[in-house]
Amino acid sequence: MTVRAALRESLGDIVDVTEESLESARADRSGHSSSGRPLAVVHAQSVRDVQETMRIATATNTPVVVRGAGTGLAGGANAGPGEIVLSTLRMNRVLEVRADDLFAVVEPGILNAELNTLLAAQGLWWPPDPASRDISTVGGNIATGAGGLLCAKYGVVRDAVLAIDLVRADGRLLHLGHRSVKGVTGLDLTSLVIGSEGTLGVVVGATLKLRRLVEGEVCTITALFPTVRAAAVGSAAVTASGAQPAIMELIDATSLVAIHSYLDLPSPPTATSQLTIQTDGPAAAAEADLIAAVLRDNGGDVTLTYDREEGERLLTIRRSMHSAMAALGTTLIEDVSVPRSALPAMYDEIARIEREYELTIPAIAHAGDGNLHPNFIFEGDEVPEQVWAAADDLFRSAISLGGTLTGEHGIGILKSRWLAAELGDDQWELQREIKRVFDPLGILNPGKVFSVA
Amino acid sequence: MTVRAALRESLGDIVDVTEESLESARADRSGHSSSGRPLAVVHAQSVRDVQETMRIATATNTPVVVRGAGTGLAGGANAGPGEIVLSTLRMNRVLEVRADDLFAVVEPGILNAELNTLLAAQGLWWPPDPASRDISTVGGNIATGAGGLLCAKYGVVRDAVLAIDLVRADGRLLHLGHRSVKGVTGLDLTSLVIGSEGTLGVVVGATLKLRRLVEGEVCTITALFPTVRAAAVGSAAVTASGAQPAIMELIDATSLVAIHSYLDLPSPPTATSQLTIQTDGPAAAAEADLIAAVLRDNGGDVTLTYDREEGERLLTIRRSMHSAMAALGTTLIEDVSVPRSALPAMYDEIARIEREYELTIPAIAHAGDGNLHPNFIFEGDEVPEQVWAAADDLFRSAISLGGTLTGEHGIGILKSRWLAAELGDDQWELQREIKRVFDPLGILNPGKVFSVA
Repeated sequence: MTVRAALRESLGDIVDVTEESLESARADRSGHSSSGRPLAVVHAQSVRDVQETMRIATATNTPVVVRGAGTGLAGGANAGPGEIVLSTLRMNRVLEVRADDLFAVVEPGILNAELNTLLAAQGLWWPPDPASRDISTVGGNIATGAGGLLCAKYGVVRDAVLAIDLVRADGRLLHLGHRSVKGVTGLDLTSLVIGSEGTLGVVVGATLKLRRLVEGEVCTITALFPTVRAAAVGSAAVTASGAQPAIMELIDATSLVAIHSYLDLPSPPTATSQLTIQTDGPAAAAEADLIAAVLRDNGGDVTLTYDREEGERLLTIRRSMHSAMAALGTTLIEDVSVPRSALPAMYDEIARIEREYELTIPAIAHAGDGNLHPNFIFEGDEVPEQVWAAADDLFRSAISLGGTLTGEHGIGILKSRWLAAELGDDQWELQREIKRVFDPLGILNPGKVFSVA
Repeated sequence: MTVRAALRESLGDIVDVTEESLESARADRSGHSSSGRPLAVVHAQSVRDVQETMRIATATNTPVVVRGAGTGLAGGANAGPGEIVLSTLRMNRVLEVRADDLFAVVEPGILNAELNTLLAAQGLWWPPDPASRDISTVGGNIATGAGGLLCAKYGVVRDAVLAIDLVRADGRLLHLGHRSVKGVTGLDLTSLVIGSEGTLGVVVGATLKLRRLVEGEVCTITALFPTVRAAAVGSAAVTASGAQPAIMELIDATSLVAIHSYLDLPSPPTATSQLTIQTDGPAAAAEADLIAAVLRDNGGDVTLTYDREEGERLLTIRRSMHSAMAALGTTLIEDVSVPRSALPAMYDEIARIEREYELTIPAIAHAGDGNLHPNFIFEGDEVPEQVWAAADDLFRSAISLGGTLTGEHGIGILKSRWLAAELGDDQWELQREIKRVFDPLGILNPGKVFSVA
């Protein structure tokens, strides 16, 4: 019996082999695509469906690619020939919300924004806010260890998960973590699974650590600087001031020109870069005043509003970055992260790489936590060699500044050839051995993260 | 050549075989002691010393017990016959403090309080604050995944470490993590090592995530309640109110009597239990007022001060708990943790266990995060079977309430026989397999955490 037939016999209608479904599972939003169609998409509706799929996969030694909404930026959920796609998108229930204990138990397929709409009705909030929050799933956020705009103040996914239910390669179900705030029983496998990109098991449920919605006003500051370096120095000065912005985004000159063009706004002055900063909570106004003063001292042309709606309008510029880039061509969005004080140096490196490789690399940054997204724009579907060479230079620069080649997008298939450069050969081999403990047959997302170039 | 001779030849004077040193390495502060003296104590002064010790241990298949200040409460650093004690207490330098990037790079042997004194001079702070902070090392805090009083608001060790340097069983040095705030490159081995209690490798360095010292006033509230259940309900109401206390400690009636007696204070009324709460930051006074109102609504007899020094005096009661218990006899301090709303139910369980086992179990709680420390008091050095039976009941009650058998002390040797009850057999075996990847010979803290009862 073929794998398809075995899946059909056991799981029935949720096994999807339509051309459209198979084709769409080949790619995420990284711009990369697998070499061909996978053999089936299983639309799991329950933990049992996931377990049964994994039992068949183990029995037939068939690779499995777990997939949520397919919004990843590293190719981690791209599926190819001979692979089963295990979609958890239909497992989208919220099983429990505990306002008293500040946790929620959810299935992996719920969208981040949908969950937060539900939670907001109870005055609650799950802080991780990737730019994809309207279209990405909580399961995908966990698989990639996602971040977002609010991370410097409110943390990333790793800080916001208490427990994970994980189906192993052979179909066994594990309950990792606990519902209490504290807990140090045994090894912290919950943290190990966060960001493991489908290589250790299938996340079928999660207990999320919530916060209460932040009360009080939201203040928004924008500041224009004559150079990107000046803007980066300004953001470092804000961090050094002790103020704790909820959001601090840096938009460099080429990004700002592209966004203004996309939004039909007048062009900004040449080389102008922008910081957009929000403060919240009980000290919002006092912090905003302090930040405005720091930015003026650092040469910024500052606009400050205490009005929440006006602030949202100012943030529109930043939120239009992705669309503005997409309008320019195919985009490879990079994701290096460095210590905050190294932000000016990292922008210097980007300028050097632009010169050496004769490229334009619009780069925004979550300046509050030192996470940069340089955008490589090109024609067609394939990333040109020149761009990969420049990206290689970029990664090594970030690592040499004490940073990492991915702050929040993950390794997937796009960055696996640089993984050992950051981890070192010994740690790389150790991580592969840990992966083998979870997945002795090597059927969980093979070729991702740990593949050799 | 004997192991001792090999150590001496390679490491010279830092190999200590004096009776006093060997004897003191048999026990931590758990009240438990190993069956006899270890074979040597190596006082490592450098990463190279640690690497050389591990190379000799691997070559001779000799078990190694890593030890900091020996203040653990689970027997995790107790060393016995045939074992090398690897002390990192002399590796106590602060290598780097970065106020701009809010991190510090330290060696493992520095005491938590010493580090924080140094940091305070720069307006900085490493938040984990175990009660042992004056006498416990940062390395030990990391090995146990320590918590403390301020955790509900400011996090535990797991939330406060960016990177770890780890010497493996065979002497190889790994650099785990990075200096940037964000980073999702490969598996999160930094988190895996936190709380691993010396079973995966030797922590020889750490990059710690700092905060700025919290500015503004500190307000302190105490509230007396007629029963422990009423106090627990009061603390749950505070959590549910949305206020975020920095400290919220619950002292039950038997603890309060013992502390008053220890401090020569007048006896509190029968059955009276106490909450002690501190608020800080810009909203300290407003939150304190809110909390006082909530506690009064819940039947509390409330005292509130906006004065920091007066507040410290009120906290003295809580801080005297450990000494008051020690004055009563030998203490087995337990460490269960439950979801915050289950605190009243957990106190009900403690009352039931007191009745069924005919014991008095003074129990305080970090009520802000649901972590309880029930104290079993007995005569002599050995924990009586009756006490273990009651502890067994206590652990299972905590787990059935969605909690864990250890919130912040670790498993060590004292709780290894309950580990599988919480993890389940499949996860327990998986964790052992991961341990084997790091330590194929089984020489790192054998018999701890994963040993079978």
